[in-house]
Amino acid sequence: MADPRFFHRAGPFSLQALAAISDARLADPASGGSVIDDVAPLETAGPRDVTFFANVKYADAFAVSRAGAAFVSSRMASRAPDGMALLIAGDPYKAFALAAQAFYPPPPIVAGRPPSAVIDPSASVPDDCEIGANAVIEAGARLGKRCQIGPNTTIGANVEIGDDCRIAANVTVSHCLMGDRVVLHPGVRIGQPGFGFAPDREVPVKVPQLGRVIIGDDVDIGANTTIDRGSGHDTEIGQGTMIDNLVQIGHSVTVGRGCILVSQVGVSGSTKFGDHVAVGGQAGFVGHVKIGDGARIGAQAGVIRDVPPGTTIGGYPAVPMRQWLRQVAMLDRLTNKKDE
Amino acid sequence: MADPRFFHRAGPFSLQALAAISDARLADPASGGSVIDDVAPLETAGPRDVTFFANVKYADAFAVSRAGAAFVSSRMASRAPDGMALLIAGDPYKAFALAAQAFYPPPPIVAGRPPSAVIDPSASVPDDCEIGANAVIEAGARLGKRCQIGPNTTIGANVEIGDDCRIAANVTVSHCLMGDRVVLHPGVRIGQPGFGFAPDREVPVKVPQLGRVIIGDDVDIGANTTIDRGSGHDTEIGQGTMIDNLVQIGHSVTVGRGCILVSQVGVSGSTKFGDHVAVGGQAGFVGHVKIGDGARIGAQAGVIRDVPPGTTIGGYPAVPMRQWLRQVAMLDRLTNKKDE
Amino acid sequence: MADPRFFHRAGPFSLQALAAISDARLADPASGGSVIDDVAPLETAGPRDVTFFANVKYADAFAVSRAGAAFVSSRMASRAPDGMALLIAGDPYKAFALAAQAFYPPPPIVAGRPPSAVIDPSASVPDDCEIGANAVIEAGARLGKRCQIGPNTTIGANVEIGDDCRIAANVTVSHCLMGDRVVLHPGVRIGQPGFGFAPDREVPVKVPQLGRVIIGDDVDIGANTTIDRGSGHDTEIGQGTMIDNLVQIGHSVTVGRGCILVSQVGVSGSTKFGDHVAVGGQAGFVGHVKIGDGARIGAQAGVIRDVPPGTTIGGYPAVPMRQWLRQVAMLDRLTNKKDE
Repeated sequence: MADPRFFHRAGPFSLQALAAISDARLADPASGGSVIDDVAPLETAGPRDVTFFANVKYADAFAVSRAGAAFVSSRMASRAPDGMALLIAGDPYKAFALAAQAFYPPPPIVAGRPPSAVIDPSASVPDDCEIGANAVIEAGARLGKRCQIGPNTTIGANVEIGDDCRIAANVTVSHCLMGDRVVLHPGVRIGQPGFGFAPDREVPVKVPQLGRVIIGDDVDIGANTTIDRGSGHDTEIGQGTMIDNLVQIGHSVTVGRGCILVSQVGVSGSTKFGDHVAVGGQAGFVGHVKIGDGARIGAQAGVIRDVPPGTTIGGYPAVPMRQWLRQVAMLDRLTNKKDE
Repeated sequence: MADPRFFHRAGPFSLQALAAISDARLADPASGGSVIDDVAPLETAGPRDVTFFANVKYADAFAVSRAGAAFVSSRMASRAPDGMALLIAGDPYKAFALAAQAFYPPPPIVAGRPPSAVIDPSASVPDDCEIGANAVIEAGARLGKRCQIGPNTTIGANVEIGDDCRIAANVTVSHCLMGDRVVLHPGVRIGQPGFGFAPDREVPVKVPQLGRVIIGDDVDIGANTTIDRGSGHDTEIGQGTMIDNLVQIGHSVTVGRGCILVSQVGVSGSTKFGDHVAVGGQAGFVGHVKIGDGARIGAQAGVIRDVPPGTTIGGYPAVPMRQWLRQVAMLDRLTNKKDE
Repeated sequence: MADPRFFHRAGPFSLQALAAISDARLADPASGGSVIDDVAPLETAGPRDVTFFANVKYADAFAVSRAGAAFVSSRMASRAPDGMALLIAGDPYKAFALAAQAFYPPPPIVAGRPPSAVIDPSASVPDDCEIGANAVIEAGARLGKRCQIGPNTTIGANVEIGDDCRIAANVTVSHCLMGDRVVLHPGVRIGQPGFGFAPDREVPVKVPQLGRVIIGDDVDIGANTTIDRGSGHDTEIGQGTMIDNLVQIGHSVTVGRGCILVSQVGVSGSTKFGDHVAVGGQAGFVGHVKIGDGARIGAQAGVIRDVPPGTTIGGYPAVPMRQWLRQVAMLDRLTNKKDE
C-alpha cells in the first residue's frame, strides 16, 4: 500500500466499476459486487487488492498470488490460482494502469497564488490555477485553466500554456507555446537558445536563435531535460510524446507524436523524428537526419544517418539490429575464453 | 519571420549597411541602397529578406530562392538566381550571423532590482544591472556592469562576475571568478565540490575541494551543465569556449580557449584540453589526460589516453579516426547480409 | 593555499595533532611539535604545509618536494627528501583527507530562517537549521537537527530529512525519506514520478508511481542528478553511496551501501546493485538486472544482463573486462596501420 503521507487513495471500487474504468470484462460476472481497496504487485497483493499478470516470466508468482483480483489476458487466464477474480483485458498492463489511476488520481489543483509568487500584472493567470511559492511568471505569459506551476519555477515572457498543464518545481520555460495536459517535471529547461555559432579564430560568432518550442497536448518531459528553441524552424514535440530525465533536444528538432525517449538520449539540431519512434537510454543522434515512423533505436546507439520507418537499429555507429547482434556474436566468438 | 512575441527586430538596414556590419562586399555596388527588413532561411526568404548560401548541398534551394539578397562566397556566386543581390563574404555563414545579430540584438538590460530579490547588503551590484525576481545574491558577491541575473538564480558568497554577463534563470554559481560577457543558460551549476574522496570499507572519506572555477571572457555554458570547482588546482574554462547543455566538467579540469563541447560530454577530473579542441556529443574522457590544441573528438568517443594536437579520433575506446572507420568498415563487411 | 574568499582555514596543527586526527604514526616522534599551517599538493607545498605521496608515478615530484611533512606508506617512506617529516599511514590519501578536513571543516551552520523563505506552518524545522533565502518547505515536511537548506530549494510535502543534512541551492525533493548527513548538491531532483506508462496507439496511459525514495545515511548526490521515486517498490540508495553529477536513477532501482557512481551514469528501472559496486562515467544499465557486491563496471559500458559479485566488466554490450580488452586488441591488430 502506498505511503499515505505521500499518496491519497480513492475508492474502494467494486469489480464491476473497475471493469468499466479499465475497459475489461469480468470472467465471472457474479463477482462484480466484490469490493477492491487498492492496487498491488503480484507478490504483495492481498484479498482486497487487484493486481495484473502480463509477462509469462512471472507465471509462478501469479500462480501463488493472494490477490483478490487480477487483470489478465484471456490466453493467460487459466494460469490463475483458484478463487481469484479475473478481469479479462486485451492489454492487462494498460487496464491495470487505468485502475491504478482511479485509485490514485493526480492530486487536485488547489487554486491560489501565494504572496511570494511574482506574477507580472500583464500575465494572464486564471483564478483556478495553482501557483507555487516563489514562482515567477513574467510579462505577457498566458496560462490555461487549472494549471499548476511549482515553487521556484520561472515562466518567461509571453509563454503560452494550455489547460490542465502541470509544471513542477524549479523549472524554466521561455519562448514556448504549449498544448493541454502537458507535464514538466522538476528542473526541465525549455526555450533557451540552441548551440549555434559560426566558428572564428578568436571568439565564435553566435547566430541569433529565432525559433520557438512548440509542445503538443499530453506531452510529458522528465526531470532536468533540456529542449532548446529553434534556430529558424521551431523545435517541435508532438502530441503524447514521453521524454524521460536528462534528455537533450537540440534546436529545430522535430519529434513526432507518441514517441518515447528514454533518459539521457541526445538529439542534435534539425533532426526529425516521425511518429511512434522509440529510443533507448543514452542513444545519440547527429544533426539533420530523419528517423522514420515507428523506428526503434537501441540504448546507447550512435545514429549517424537516416533510419527508415519501422526499422530497429543498434550499435555505435548504429546499424540494423540483426547486423549489430551478428557483430556482437562474432566478437564474442573470437575473444571468449572458457577459462574465465 | 521571428515571432514578435518573443523577438524584437531592429532595422531595416540598407545592403550597404549590412555589408559594413558583416565585413562583406557587394557584388554590385549599385545595389547598396536596397532595403532589407529581415533575415530568413533560403526556402522562406522573400524580396525584403537576406539569406545565406554556404553548403553546396542546398544549391537547388539557392537557385530558386526568392530572397532579395544573400551572403555567398565568390566561388559560389554564379549559382545565384537572377536578380538576387549578392554579399560576397569569405565565410558566408559568419557574415550572416553578424547580420542576424544586427536585426536581433540581445534584449536590452532593464536595470533594476525587484523587491523579491534577496541581495546581501555586502554584495556589490551596480545600478545598471538587471536582477530577476526571487534571485538570491549572497554576501560579498561582486557583479560587473550591465549584468543580468535571472529569476530564481543563486549567486554564492564572494563570487566575482565581470561586465556584461548574462546569467539566466534557476542557475547556481559558487566559488567562481568569471570574466566579461559570459553567458550561463538556465539550470547551470558552477562551483559545487567535485567527486573526491578516499575509499573506505565503511563510508568514503571526502577530500575537501579547495579550488575555484575560473571562467574566461565570452564563455557560453549550456542549460543544466555542471562544472565542479577544483580540488587543489582550479577548474578553468578558457576564453571564447562554447559548452552545450548537460555537459559535465569535473574538478580541476582545464579547458583551453575557443573549445567547443557538444551536449552530454563528460570530462573527468584533472584532464587538460588545449585551445580550439572540438568534442562531439556524449563523448567521455577519463581523468588526468591531455588533449592537444585543435584536436577533434568524435561523438560518443571514449577517450582513455592523451590525444596529440591536431588529431581526429573516434570510437570506444577512441583511436585515430581513420582507424576507427576501418574497424567499422571491417565489422560491416564481416556481418552485413544483403537480404536484410 | 585555498582562496580565503571562499574557504576558511582552521589550525595551525602540530604534527602530533595531525597524526592523531588522521590515524597516522610519526616516523620521528621528535617531530611531533612542529607546526603545520595548511595542506598542499606535492609541487606547491612549502615548509609549513603537509602533503601526501601515494602514487609511485609522482616519485620524482616527491623527491624534490619542499613540503614540511607528508603522509606516506612505510614502504614508500625511503623515497622522501631529507628533512621532510613523515606521517606513516596505511592509506596516505585517506589520512591526508582527514587532515584536510581538519584544516577545512564544512562551513558552520548559521541557524536562521530568512523572511523570504516560505515554510508551511505544519512543517517541522528545528531552530538550529539554516534555511536559505527564497527556499520553500511544504506542509508536513520534517527536518532533522542542524540541517542546511539552500536558497531557491523546494522541499515537498511530508518529506523527512535526518540530522546534519546539507541540501544545496536550487534543489527539488519530494516523496523522500532521508537519513543523516546526506549531502545533495545544486540542482538535484529527488522523488519525481518515474517513466512508467502502458503504450497506446493514441496517448500512453501513465501508471501512477506509488513508491518513495529512501536515502541512507552519509549519501552524497551530485549536481543535477535525478532520482525517480519507486513505481511500486521504493527506490533505495544505500548508506555511504557516492553519486556524481548528472546521473539518472530510474524508478524502483536499489543501490546498495558504499557504491560509487561516476557522472552521467544511467540506471533503468528496477535494477538492483549490491554493496560497494563501482561504476565508471556514462555507463548505462537496462532495467531489471542484478549487479553483485563489489562489481566494477567500466566507463561507457552498456550493461544488459546480471553481473556476478566481484566481476569487472566493460564494453558495449558489456562483457568481462579481459574479454573486452581482447576485443579491443584484436580490432586494433586488424586495422592499425603503422603509417598513420
